[in-house]
Amino acid sequence: MRGAVLHAPGDVRYEERRDPTIIEPTDAIVSTTVTCVCGSDLWPYRGLDKVTRPRAIGHEYCGIVEQVGDAVTSVKPGQFVIGGFLTSDNTCPNCRAGVQSSCQRGTGYDGCQSELIRIQWADGTLVATPEQPAEDLIPSLLTLSDVMATGWHAAVSAGVKPDMTVAVVGDGAVGLCGVLAASQLGAKRVIAMSRHQERQQVAREFGATDIVPERSDEGIARIKELTEGVGADAVLECVGTGESMVQALRSTRAGGMVGWVGVPHGVELPMQDLFWRNVGVRGGPAPVRQYLPDLLDRVWNRQIDPGRVFDMVLPLKQVADGYRAMDQRRAIKVLLRP
Amino acid sequence: MRGAVLHAPGDVRYEERRDPTIIEPTDAIVSTTVTCVCGSDLWPYRGLDKVTRPRAIGHEYCGIVEQVGDAVTSVKPGQFVIGGFLTSDNTCPNCRAGVQSSCQRGTGYDGCQSELIRIQWADGTLVATPEQPAEDLIPSLLTLSDVMATGWHAAVSAGVKPDMTVAVVGDGAVGLCGVLAASQLGAKRVIAMSRHQERQQVAREFGATDIVPERSDEGIARIKELTEGVGADAVLECVGTGESMVQALRSTRAGGMVGWVGVPHGVELPMQDLFWRNVGVRGGPAPVRQYLPDLLDRVWNRQIDPGRVFDMVLPLKQVADGYRAMDQRRAIKVLLRP
Repeated sequence: MRGAVLHAPGDVRYEERRDPTIIEPTDAIVSTTVTCVCGSDLWPYRGLDKVTRPRAIGHEYCGIVEQVGDAVTSVKPGQFVIGGFLTSDNTCPNCRAGVQSSCQRGTGYDGCQSELIRIQWADGTLVATPEQPAEDLIPSLLTLSDVMATGWHAAVSAGVKPDMTVAVVGDGAVGLCGVLAASQLGAKRVIAMSRHQERQQVAREFGATDIVPERSDEGIARIKELTEGVGADAVLECVGTGESMVQALRSTRAGGMVGWVGVPHGVELPMQDLFWRNVGVRGGPAPVRQYLPDLLDRVWNRQIDPGRVFDMVLPLKQVADGYRAMDQRRAIKVLLRP
Repeated sequence: MRGAVLHAPGDVRYEERRDPTIIEPTDAIVSTTVTCVCGSDLWPYRGLDKVTRPRAIGHEYCGIVEQVGDAVTSVKPGQFVIGGFLTSDNTCPNCRAGVQSSCQRGTGYDGCQSELIRIQWADGTLVATPEQPAEDLIPSLLTLSDVMATGWHAAVSAGVKPDMTVAVVGDGAVGLCGVLAASQLGAKRVIAMSRHQERQQVAREFGATDIVPERSDEGIARIKELTEGVGADAVLECVGTGESMVQALRSTRAGGMVGWVGVPHGVELPMQDLFWRNVGVRGGPAPVRQYLPDLLDRVWNRQIDPGRVFDMVLPLKQVADGYRAMDQRRAIKVLLRP
């Protein structure tokens, strides 16, 4: 088969790779219908995470089960399935507590931007659709593998509840999905922070009631203007830099909560300010498997359309072009078809 | 009147001070029935917070209303009242959101370890008991001014819910009240971390199901042994040092929550660990006014007896002895009677 391999910062190649095989009886092999490039793939692509040797890349996918190990009972060949960006057995104490992203036996993947994928712990990772999906649902189903589940996790971690005012820092695919999540969870006001017209447009379609294009002090001042001078009840931090975290914290009212899902790079918290204002921080990698059944229902019933975040579609063999487009912010998110 | 003044680290004097008077129409003057020494008073007493000039000290009290300003309507002279360690108008946006410790007009006190206290924003700060309290209830009522409300806030901030396993770091008065709070909120297992026999005893009376005397790695290992190897669902951090915070975070399961109420001194969070394990942190100064009515009911109905934390009673004129006893950990908490 062929798949994407990151050789060095800026150097993604589509090349011949060994076909994956069933190794453990709990494995499945999935033939990729669609995959995509994640904001977090850009960290090593940009050299901000070290790249010490060539490695297969990508962790988002949906596709058709080709083969299952002897112990797999919940999915079977021919089914259309979605899996999160980490595998989980869904039975360990962390999984039972709903934190499948900390599964004691969970793993990553050997590159999902490829034609075939080995899925470990298939029973605890994959969820099948009720039947073969309509073509136009596929992009939205793909977002459940990561960005939509991650935006949802930001909102859940920030404790979003009906009638709250929620601000979202970050207008990438995760931030936009955070807007959609906050809106679905009943927020009465969703403030999207974005300077880009196309992203503002998607944010509005996803339920943003207000757009704040300003950043830093001006951005915080605008959010305070909209909230009796105190800040938002809940803020979703969907970037992962020190700057975006400070933006999020300072936009939060006393007693409010920041849900953070941007993989942290150089983030330090101003502890005195957090403490004296009773601002909480909670988040991390989304437990996708926890949210998948609910989110799949919402997509299947056409209640949400998170696939809107894909604004570029390329054949998988042009994966390098996809990385370039995302790196240069010419695309919000690139969908790839083998 | 007379009251305690901190002149320099280690130097608390009981001396003549000017009688407080009504300055604003929203003020009240309270004649102190009981007051006490707080763990946080020890920071300046030990020189860990700067003492640049003599200042009246103390922020916990209950007593009898002597006089009220023209605008005060909710309490009247003769009533027995309790107020939190900060005043609040109970009407600003932060108060309405339940974070009275961030009241936009809230203040501290000009020393509550004194015979008389000026209470600003009396209507939004003081809560009167249904009638004059029985003598034996008074210590418990006094704890509502700070330590019991603060322990409660730790448990609320950590999201303690029925059937959870909760660990408490810190066996001072706040930590012990945290044990009581977790138990009242329905935790099925409450693990108190304490090496002191008398404190262990109070913890057990307050509902601790397990005592862990070990600290650091051994303490964490013991908590994991009690929790299927993963850690507690919620951990209450009731000290405020970097060491105690690390102890709390590492005792928390993936996806769990730390409620922190120890005023932070040199606390930095290990952000990567927090993120990848989805451990949240929330807390700060307790919004006492939010919890007062409920906690007062529980004390009045003799459902809880947080006054047990007082293991030394002194006349207020011996306030300096009280500081020494707490500093040397000869007392958990010292009650002072003018």
